[in-house]
Amino acid sequence: MELIQQIGKMRAKARALQSTGKPLAFVPTMGALHKGHLRLIERAKGLGGSVVVSSFVNPMQFTNEQDLKNYPRDPAKDEKACRDAGVDAYFVPSVEEIYPQGFLTSVNVGYLSTKYEGASRPGHFRGVCTVVLKLLNIVRPTHLVLGLKDAQQFTIIQHMLDDLSMDVELVGVPTVRDADGLALSSRNALLTKDQRAAALCIQRALKRVHFLVKKQGILHSGELLQAIRSATNTEHVTLDYAAIVNRTTLEPLDHVMRGGTYILIAAKVGDVRLIDNTRI
Amino acid sequence: MELIQQIGKMRAKARALQSTGKPLAFVPTMGALHKGHLRLIERAKGLGGSVVVSSFVNPMQFTNEQDLKNYPRDPAKDEKACRDAGVDAYFVPSVEEIYPQGFLTSVNVGYLSTKYEGASRPGHFRGVCTVVLKLLNIVRPTHLVLGLKDAQQFTIIQHMLDDLSMDVELVGVPTVRDADGLALSSRNALLTKDQRAAALCIQRALKRVHFLVKKQGILHSGELLQAIRSATNTEHVTLDYAAIVNRTTLEPLDHVMRGGTYILIAAKVGDVRLIDNTRI
Repeated sequence: MELIQQIGKMRAKARALQSTGKPLAFVPTMGALHKGHLRLIERAKGLGGSVVVSSFVNPMQFTNEQDLKNYPRDPAKDEKACRDAGVDAYFVPSVEEIYPQGFLTSVNVGYLSTKYEGASRPGHFRGVCTVVLKLLNIVRPTHLVLGLKDAQQFTIIQHMLDDLSMDVELVGVPTVRDADGLALSSRNALLTKDQRAAALCIQRALKRVHFLVKKQGILHSGELLQAIRSATNTEHVTLDYAAIVNRTTLEPLDHVMRGGTYILIAAKVGDVRLIDNTRI
Repeated sequence: MELIQQIGKMRAKARALQSTGKPLAFVPTMGALHKGHLRLIERAKGLGGSVVVSSFVNPMQFTNEQDLKNYPRDPAKDEKACRDAGVDAYFVPSVEEIYPQGFLTSVNVGYLSTKYEGASRPGHFRGVCTVVLKLLNIVRPTHLVLGLKDAQQFTIIQHMLDDLSMDVELVGVPTVRDADGLALSSRNALLTKDQRAAALCIQRALKRVHFLVKKQGILHSGELLQAIRSATNTEHVTLDYAAIVNRTTLEPLDHVMRGGTYILIAAKVGDVRLIDNTRI
């Protein structure tokens, strides 16, 4: 595995990997790799070509300086994890490499970016889209592999790729969960034991919605959202939003539309903001 | 020459041209081709590979519906001009092809986009950057060839390409002028005979600045701008702005900086808005 810090070197390595004619899968991360990320890399390797992973804690997508400062980092462990996973190139640029002095450009995906996560974190998706576009221009992969835990991000990136006619296929990988059901997130490391136990209510709420839809035939969003509010009304947990939305447009749905619905939840557990979702 | 209207077909043709390993030069236009455009195509051909020209009157960069409606169009003549110039592929997408229903993405180059042309035409450069980025993603050229008449556009596009790590070289081509000195522009076709005669004051003002700088050693911007205002204070002509700026940052300069200065002028001649510039 090649560890690369410069854009020019990453571009050259990527061109060499492309020249094989095989797929080149790209997995952008913010480091602090967990089993969810490893599943992404596994999926990327499964495409049968080479794999580039990037690790970059992107300041442009943080709306809160403290959150950026607290974001978990463990570069040595991340590098070893990538090496062990058989990654071909591991791109770890500095902030100055990605955003040199005078950087001015930003990419926006209209109203999709101002809802839900975007409402709670204004400018977040502008930061995500800008860095993803830049990384794609450097690596020029055939496939971009992203986790479905960040459902809104996935929808927005797909929209950006389509709008800008980017020649890359987006691959979504289902959320990986711990044995207790908590969706894996680098932020979980910041939870106390009590907070972690409390956080399980998010997954319970999503399961409850599945039960209500599938076993009881309840499709009305108002009723389902009420069930989510009840299930997450517990100590340590403050629901930020719960939403039942069309998977492509992210517009709220009056009724669950089988095969095309996301149930989105964001909650603060102590000071840690967690998101989760399920598809119906 | 291949005439292409679909993104997919353009992408396939561009990939075939790229596979030769020779340069692939791309010249984006809004049609209504004049000798200035032909000079761009000539420069593109001079790079020794193949040439793709696009013709797309981009609604996203027009801030005035009437201006968009009035923009001169002559598709048959444009196609013939490209064919005669030895263009390899001529891309003429519809508005729906570039901006399908639900299009949401936009690209912004910060404060560079809100000055001068951007102040007079809010959102103009967002439209320019978005469509240029999309066209570059479709064609993936080695070289992008643009005219230097649109000085601010040139600076902004260069900034966008750098910021987003686009793997393409920007080539600037000096402004082509009619025998009387008027910078060629598709909009010149909209001028009456009297307006056209009046419009020559723009070029005279730029020449006057050159004279003052080079022969009289006047470098103070205030004095030079006063000379521009005097030279353009004539019937049919309303000066929109005149500015003496750093060529990279577009920041106003107190004094001309030899080798790094743009003198920018925009003026309305009757209802027609014209821009011109010179480098010092």
